[in-house]
Amino acid sequence: MNFEYYNPTRLIFSSGSLKRLGEVSVQYGKRALLVTGGGSVKRNGVFDRAVASLEQAGIAVAECSGVEPNPRITTVRRGARIARDEGCDLIIALGGGSVMDAAKVMAAAHYYNGDPWDMIYHGQPKPYLPTRALPVITVPTLAATGSEMNMGAVISNEETCEKSFVQAECLYPVTALVDPELTISVPQDQTAYGICDIITHVTEAYFNGVDGTPVQDRFAEGTILTTIQYGQRALADGNDLEARAQVQWASIVALNGWVNAGTNGGFPVHMIEHTLSAYHDVTHGAGLAVVNPAWMRFAARHRPEKFVQFAERIFGLRGKDADNLDCALEGIKRFETYLHSIGCPTRLSELKIDDTLITRYAQDTLRIIHDKHGNLPGRPPLSGSDIEQILRSAL
Amino acid sequence: MNFEYYNPTRLIFSSGSLKRLGEVSVQYGKRALLVTGGGSVKRNGVFDRAVASLEQAGIAVAECSGVEPNPRITTVRRGARIARDEGCDLIIALGGGSVMDAAKVMAAAHYYNGDPWDMIYHGQPKPYLPTRALPVITVPTLAATGSEMNMGAVISNEETCEKSFVQAECLYPVTALVDPELTISVPQDQTAYGICDIITHVTEAYFNGVDGTPVQDRFAEGTILTTIQYGQRALADGNDLEARAQVQWASIVALNGWVNAGTNGGFPVHMIEHTLSAYHDVTHGAGLAVVNPAWMRFAARHRPEKFVQFAERIFGLRGKDADNLDCALEGIKRFETYLHSIGCPTRLSELKIDDTLITRYAQDTLRIIHDKHGNLPGRPPLSGSDIEQILRSAL
Repeated sequence: MNFEYYNPTRLIFSSGSLKRLGEVSVQYGKRALLVTGGGSVKRNGVFDRAVASLEQAGIAVAECSGVEPNPRITTVRRGARIARDEGCDLIIALGGGSVMDAAKVMAAAHYYNGDPWDMIYHGQPKPYLPTRALPVITVPTLAATGSEMNMGAVISNEETCEKSFVQAECLYPVTALVDPELTISVPQDQTAYGICDIITHVTEAYFNGVDGTPVQDRFAEGTILTTIQYGQRALADGNDLEARAQVQWASIVALNGWVNAGTNGGFPVHMIEHTLSAYHDVTHGAGLAVVNPAWMRFAARHRPEKFVQFAERIFGLRGKDADNLDCALEGIKRFETYLHSIGCPTRLSELKIDDTLITRYAQDTLRIIHDKHGNLPGRPPLSGSDIEQILRSAL
Repeated sequence: MNFEYYNPTRLIFSSGSLKRLGEVSVQYGKRALLVTGGGSVKRNGVFDRAVASLEQAGIAVAECSGVEPNPRITTVRRGARIARDEGCDLIIALGGGSVMDAAKVMAAAHYYNGDPWDMIYHGQPKPYLPTRALPVITVPTLAATGSEMNMGAVISNEETCEKSFVQAECLYPVTALVDPELTISVPQDQTAYGICDIITHVTEAYFNGVDGTPVQDRFAEGTILTTIQYGQRALADGNDLEARAQVQWASIVALNGWVNAGTNGGFPVHMIEHTLSAYHDVTHGAGLAVVNPAWMRFAARHRPEKFVQFAERIFGLRGKDADNLDCALEGIKRFETYLHSIGCPTRLSELKIDDTLITRYAQDTLRIIHDKHGNLPGRPPLSGSDIEQILRSAL
């Protein structure tokens, strides 16, 4: 277990904290680019409350609205242009993962004269690693990606059907202002996809990480158990603020480094899902719900003992011994059944994806990221035909 | 659950990382004050290796050695003076919790013209809260206090028999360089006291925090389980590097905010122990081993359900129902038995403390910290006679 950890984002986690946006922002700038997604924050009044708080603090607001799910590099370019034209010195992301991710890359694009797509890892010989960005404040309205308190962003290129990531320390938001009340209005399907996203962030590190990370294993299991328990409450009653708060907190720790510190693993399920949603307009969490159980069944045959631990500690199953594949597979089945019970798809057909392009999904995934043997990093590393086999098992 | 979290310390956790000290330090300064404790780092060569790495990176080294266990304000004053006289622009703490705590306060004293004791919370009307400090790099040689990655320090005043704390953001080390190999030489008794310190950090937040922190509960339980399991291995074989590494990692997460984020609780066991070790030269972790089980038995009667959860999740006991006091007390007994089994004292008599000064311990603890009703903060808040009762039960 050898690793480095650094996360300087200041977290303010508090119901009703949206009203503090102005007071928090004024420490970092005077002209804010306020980035939003579709119209929901405008319809429910959150946008107006945010603007009011900013203006009360004397901050001028420029706007970049319309960031789409699976945010596009064209949108990043557009936002970066607005920020420059309007002389913004601060970017505020008010929305879900796509809004926060786009805002982060806009912030780095501000100091880069090339095309921001250069920053997104897509198999180019030398990706541009940004080292400077405008300060970003994240105000998440959805519990899912954990982008509010990490240094990652995922961006799509609609022209090339590529969806990939950038990670750089300058992308850490200066502050994450997390107000769980803002997630009260999230509809059931998006709530469920968010739950799947959270759990998948955790399982990626848990199953693909190095051996010998007992603290992280416990943190991972605790995060999954809490997400399942409070996720069900949030789905049963969207106005259950305590449940919303716990799910949102779980989404943050799932990907701010606390759960996966030192695990140093690949994220193969994410990589495969990114290719699917580059070709098809699939919600990330829904795509993960299909890919993750299929990947788990494949990976469990290579390393059953970790999947037995998962079955035991998450679902209370008893493995007869550590390499009891039946117990491992039963745990995966329980997990898949849970995802389906909360309204997530678990087959590609539910996403209206058939086998026509399966070879291409595998090739594209490997084109974006592969190890020196040409395989997708993870445990086990996956060849193109492994990826195809996983996807076929989920048809 | 309403809270703020901020921890900008960069963590490098890696066996053999001591050799990187120079390379890491040179980013922050050119003249380092190297703070150490007793002679162990000199006897085992760690001091020489640290100096060699620093000098190779072109860093001049001034020295402040001899920081005692329960570090004294006189030592802080001495170190701050050396740093000024030698023109140091960086402080490196190479040692255990006392060395790291003293170094942090020296770093803040550098920018404060008054007496550094003003910073230590001891019941004065207006404690001085430092806002600026020299950069500090921590290199822990003991797994215990977690001081390497937090903003706290505990300092004693030998003249007034006071021992208390300061917490300020400027005290976050810029980097914690954690090399578990450095803890291989820690003797069994200190290893055991460190284990008790780690677990007590976790139980304080767990039992005194607000209700409704399910993620933190799981993190706490996972940290305790890991500390017990790997602590036993480290005690059985001090050269077991993996066990040493896991215990050290547990010591860091126990008090860097990851386990206790949002719990917002008091630390009554620490406050009581601080008074004991202000009067008697007791190792902090050994004092905690006596006070914690006694406090637990007192507190369990007020809030058995959390102690039942502890008994169930840590020791696998089954509570008949959530307020089953028998189950709670059995869990506490198991915990006390565990502490004794690894060589910790669990009675005041083992620390050679009798009941002569019990009233004064209670009064002094409350003088340093109390709520508006004059009680020691915690669940439940403790009056002076409560504190006496707890201490008498541990005689």
